[in-house]
Amino acid sequence: MDQQKLDYIRSTITNIRDFPKPGIIFRDITSLIEDRRAFLASVKMIADHYRDRGIDKVAAPEARGFIFSAAVATQLNAGLVLIRKPGKLPREVISEKYTLEYGEAEVQCHRDSIVSGEKILIVDDLIATGGTAIATANLIHRLDGVVEDAAFVINLPDCGGAEALKKLGIETFSLVSFDGE
Amino acid sequence: MDQQKLDYIRSTITNIRDFPKPGIIFRDITSLIEDRRAFLASVKMIADHYRDRGIDKVAAPEARGFIFSAAVATQLNAGLVLIRKPGKLPREVISEKYTLEYGEAEVQCHRDSIVSGEKILIVDDLIATGGTAIATANLIHRLDGVVEDAAFVINLPDCGGAEALKKLGIETFSLVSFDGE
Repeated sequence: MDQQKLDYIRSTITNIRDFPKPGIIFRDITSLIEDRRAFLASVKMIADHYRDRGIDKVAAPEARGFIFSAAVATQLNAGLVLIRKPGKLPREVISEKYTLEYGEAEVQCHRDSIVSGEKILIVDDLIATGGTAIATANLIHRLDGVVEDAAFVINLPDCGGAEALKKLGIETFSLVSFDGE
Repeated sequence: MDQQKLDYIRSTITNIRDFPKPGIIFRDITSLIEDRRAFLASVKMIADHYRDRGIDKVAAPEARGFIFSAAVATQLNAGLVLIRKPGKLPREVISEKYTLEYGEAEVQCHRDSIVSGEKILIVDDLIATGGTAIATANLIHRLDGVVEDAAFVINLPDCGGAEALKKLGIETFSLVSFDGE
């Protein structure tokens, strides 16, 4: 990958200390997407990585995930499957629960959103512990879809998400990593 | 515009009766975006309409708006400004309240998300009464941005949103209309 572009993308991410709680550095992509050069570069670098992989659909976790997923999907001429919180999707859904640091979360997708055998790429803005991505992969598998990697703009390797996905046989791809702190 | 493409896009929208409450027909775009041909066509038709208009940024109302806004923004090589519900944006925000059929809603954007004089295109999946689009336009105006139209996949003309925007001097563009019922 083009290191100069990656450095530029990284420079547009805002690091917000103690948000949403003390001790956490929030990696804010709103400043990245406001910058047309960084936004288009990040979308194209993810899309280019998957251009010859025959992706049928991109899975898009709510809500920031919609941003990069939708843009990557149109670059790949793929469909888009929404992964949403409960109560948001109007037709028959299937659900997956997963644990967060405090409490539980749940994601859903439409039961008819994936056709058996379709190749699905998960795209989200950031991977930390990987909870959402794993729940998304479970939804895809239950609908007999094939998970073709999970791609992220930002990886926080210390949170272990990419490793957890690898143990499930799912490779990850990310543009920028932030260690420790 | 290509009527055959528009007819195809329309055919992929699911009409769900009595959702979210009796008497309402919900126009569901999840089936449109799952269809790669309809998704790419709708994004390209909106982008093509604005290709020579010098759009600097696309304003994206949460959450379904993110989908079409992000895809259109990358097609136009424009930045993306998120318009979100309170508590979602991590930096300093400005807010606009607006009335819904029952109660009140509020949207926010980052105070530094628009540079004075930038040309902003509002893109959302659907316009009904136009409340969100008008509040979005107000946020843009308060940051000295120029609102260059508001574009939608679906217009519900009987709800009066396009007319209300026109009274404020904002033109709308949409691909598919559903009347009455």
